[in-house]
Amino acid sequence: MMHRLTRHVCGLCMAGGLALAATLSVAPAHAQDTNTPDGIIYEAEFQRLWEQKGEEWTAEDKEIQDRLQALEKKFGKKPNIIHILWDDMRMGAVGSRLYTDISGYEAPNLEKMARSGLTFTRMYTEPSCTPTRVAAATGRLAVRSGMIFPIFPIHRMGLPASEVTIAEVVDDTYHTGFFEKAHFGDQEEGYVHNQGWDEAIFSLYNQFAGQMFTKDAESTGFTTAFSEDGYDKKYFIDNSFRPLNWMWTVEGFEGQKGREFSTPKTFAEYQDANKKMFQRTLEFIRKHAKSDKPFMLQWWPNLYEVADQDAMRPFSTQNGTASAESIKRMDVKIGQIMGLLKELGISENTLVIAMADNGPMVPIHPETGQNGFFRGGKNDVTEGGIRVPAFAMWPGVIEPGSVVGDIIHVSDLFNTFARIAGRYDQIPRDRVIDGIDQTALLMKGDGHSRRDYVFTYKGPKMGSIVKQQFKRHLPIGPGALAGAEFFDLYKDPREEHPLMAEFLWAWAQFDAMKARHDKQIAKFPHTPVARGEPYTGVVRLADQ
Amino acid sequence: MMHRLTRHVCGLCMAGGLALAATLSVAPAHAQDTNTPDGIIYEAEFQRLWEQKGEEWTAEDKEIQDRLQALEKKFGKKPNIIHILWDDMRMGAVGSRLYTDISGYEAPNLEKMARSGLTFTRMYTEPSCTPTRVAAATGRLAVRSGMIFPIFPIHRMGLPASEVTIAEVVDDTYHTGFFEKAHFGDQEEGYVHNQGWDEAIFSLYNQFAGQMFTKDAESTGFTTAFSEDGYDKKYFIDNSFRPLNWMWTVEGFEGQKGREFSTPKTFAEYQDANKKMFQRTLEFIRKHAKSDKPFMLQWWPNLYEVADQDAMRPFSTQNGTASAESIKRMDVKIGQIMGLLKELGISENTLVIAMADNGPMVPIHPETGQNGFFRGGKNDVTEGGIRVPAFAMWPGVIEPGSVVGDIIHVSDLFNTFARIAGRYDQIPRDRVIDGIDQTALLMKGDGHSRRDYVFTYKGPKMGSIVKQQFKRHLPIGPGALAGAEFFDLYKDPREEHPLMAEFLWAWAQFDAMKARHDKQIAKFPHTPVARGEPYTGVVRLADQ
Repeated sequence: MMHRLTRHVCGLCMAGGLALAATLSVAPAHAQDTNTPDGIIYEAEFQRLWEQKGEEWTAEDKEIQDRLQALEKKFGKKPNIIHILWDDMRMGAVGSRLYTDISGYEAPNLEKMARSGLTFTRMYTEPSCTPTRVAAATGRLAVRSGMIFPIFPIHRMGLPASEVTIAEVVDDTYHTGFFEKAHFGDQEEGYVHNQGWDEAIFSLYNQFAGQMFTKDAESTGFTTAFSEDGYDKKYFIDNSFRPLNWMWTVEGFEGQKGREFSTPKTFAEYQDANKKMFQRTLEFIRKHAKSDKPFMLQWWPNLYEVADQDAMRPFSTQNGTASAESIKRMDVKIGQIMGLLKELGISENTLVIAMADNGPMVPIHPETGQNGFFRGGKNDVTEGGIRVPAFAMWPGVIEPGSVVGDIIHVSDLFNTFARIAGRYDQIPRDRVIDGIDQTALLMKGDGHSRRDYVFTYKGPKMGSIVKQQFKRHLPIGPGALAGAEFFDLYKDPREEHPLMAEFLWAWAQFDAMKARHDKQIAKFPHTPVARGEPYTGVVRLADQ
Repeated sequence: MMHRLTRHVCGLCMAGGLALAATLSVAPAHAQDTNTPDGIIYEAEFQRLWEQKGEEWTAEDKEIQDRLQALEKKFGKKPNIIHILWDDMRMGAVGSRLYTDISGYEAPNLEKMARSGLTFTRMYTEPSCTPTRVAAATGRLAVRSGMIFPIFPIHRMGLPASEVTIAEVVDDTYHTGFFEKAHFGDQEEGYVHNQGWDEAIFSLYNQFAGQMFTKDAESTGFTTAFSEDGYDKKYFIDNSFRPLNWMWTVEGFEGQKGREFSTPKTFAEYQDANKKMFQRTLEFIRKHAKSDKPFMLQWWPNLYEVADQDAMRPFSTQNGTASAESIKRMDVKIGQIMGLLKELGISENTLVIAMADNGPMVPIHPETGQNGFFRGGKNDVTEGGIRVPAFAMWPGVIEPGSVVGDIIHVSDLFNTFARIAGRYDQIPRDRVIDGIDQTALLMKGDGHSRRDYVFTYKGPKMGSIVKQQFKRHLPIGPGALAGAEFFDLYKDPREEHPLMAEFLWAWAQFDAMKARHDKQIAKFPHTPVARGEPYTGVVRLADQ
């Protein structure tokens, strides 16, 4: 299968994995590239942490492994894994009435999840959808695969085949399912069912495309480009400029040709497609609950129904926006999933991670725009863009109602899921891995993260560096005065008071972090994004 | 006693109270001034609410009264009341790790109080210390007694004798104590022990004065005015400009002359005075715990130790500011009070309200400056200035871990304490009362507030009006375009997106609210603030 061909694992460094031939032009990993016994080429900063804490973490890992084995013995299989990842949300938008009361709505099921499990207060993502989703799937910053911005219709680009996803890592040891928003682009090699998932209905682009390239959106003034007869053609010469022949969602099974699932022409069609995808999500859980094999489910729901305002009425919140209504609707679905896990008796053998993919779209006020603790939103590398609501639930393992103030990054889920699935040896050894195994954080709670830093990119360029409570913004132009760049996130979570004299010590430290990061990139260069004709390998709806 | 002389209760309107002769030049209350059976002249807006909900609330009050009587039967006396009111804090600075993790410190005892009791998410105050404290003590907006700004040394003004405080309302039926920061000014008639409290050690001004008019503050560059030998006197002519002969705290017992308690010359003296005042607070509780009479305690602690940075080292938080350290220290004291109530077996017969008096001092970054959910801080009439962290604890009565999203105002505590103390009939009937009885909100929780509005003043002028989720800012100059004034607080808690077209309906409604408010003021004019020589009726330390 396509996704297997390009996988490369360095035999020298592997601890129990399978060595495959290298097909990429990157240097193979050798002892000098990694300092961890597992042979993974972690990002340079983590290797420095390992130097300081490796011994302690190795001992801790034995304890973790014992607990995982005890769980496997108890339940007769590895834990199921559910990753819920939704769009554009500020930290504080869900998780507790202490947050949501400020905005006049409730999301009781996510609040219940937080009470049953844990709340992350420093979960970092990339600043926009495609990058975060790629980082979650590959354990690598999206810049490493060229997936540096949200892909829109018809960009003719997508996730390259050579990336190894978490579905490929768990491979046949898990039933794998993917439903709703992938946003990995329109290239065949990047389709979810070509990237390791057994079964999927997924969108190539985002949820706004699904809503806004419709007649309904035109009628509300959102767009004016898509109805065949929706606009005056008097000056109309170029018939190819508007992406009229675009495609939204594809249904796929591993090893098979995909089938176009839905490209809505109306808001009702958009809602209908989402409804069906969610039904398939529930069916997937039900189907595999009693299987000998565990399952891994990526349910990455399309959040925010905004194109057809009327369809949201009557509003059930005091807030009275379509976005609050959308959050409530998603929350109901999350409640259904939690209820189903309970009904099927698999709650205690299922890890659920639920989170947003980046900060809110601040310019779309008030639909997703307001921010609270932090400044900025989607596409910003201030905390408002990259620090999101996030929760984990695993009854019997995670302490109910706990809060962790540690730094964690979305790419860490790749390693953590691999560890929990017993497939850590399948993580590639021929490339830089940004993710870090955070199983200890889930199992032991506050203070047990193995990360104290985050590199954030804005497109192809590094935008900011977070280290502990300190943060440096990287100016786009030539070096500015230090005073404009350095922040203390505890004292100034909104990054409104840059500090100069107080941070003279930090200039060289952040410079060195970036230099080590860049040096590693020079040796292990980024993979080019996949580019080519869109929608190959998919049977269009018209042809089905 | 001084505070009795000027109290006036209109015999026509009183339900069970004692009629006294009028000594103020305001019109007495008559049927046309009030529409409530208790004869209180509530602010005009509440009278409109009563028209709509009076019947329902009358029925609810019977239920409340039954519960209060059952409690009194059970415990053999009325409930004790503790009001904890501290300085300058943004909502979200305490109460849950979901909030405090953002800033890198913990306040575990206030978190415990929130878990044991309830969190208010819309507790409104006045925008600065003196006004909020006066509103809490008198149940009236501070503008009605001329106490419109924080009183500093030596302003020669203070709370007028004619104001009736909550201590005067509960009178001899409660042991009443007041410790730490009053900030009612420097006039004898306004001293706490002349305003109804049995026993008090209280400051005339704020806590910064106590710290900053010291040699230690001079040595850190905060102030340069107060040491006799602390500055070059070459151009020094006027010996009266710097308030060298000021006084900070007074110890007083009802009916007796006061005694200067402490006017610190060093930071150590400031800390020592606070320590002693807190010890007296604990002694007060211990002394009256087993008494036949309940007690009412105003512990309004001095928060933020900032003048002597060294005295705060080493910092025990990740945040690493003196303000975070101060919050932790206050939190420890709150834990001591909670522990003492438990030790004495009186937790279940004691209502504790704990809250800040206004938003943070944003200009003093990062000491108290950062803001989260809201825009602005102390002295602003945006939510950042007037919406504060607030909690209530009353085991067995208040549901543990509850959250109330209702609007409540600090002046409501006056009425609520009066109700709980069985002294509602002692609330004056000759003046406008802004407070509203919120006992139902405490006992029945979310959705049971009787207030859906707040008038906020900035000095003598109305600054903004909150009604439900809507808010109008009142421009200082002549009428601006509606677009600059109107906000939806659920959609835009930071008041960053004024709305115009969406609020055309609201222009006239807010105008009418203000017109009714002003009409009532014309009939019941403000009381002039007390003015005169400072520190009369107090024996100076030098003379003791």
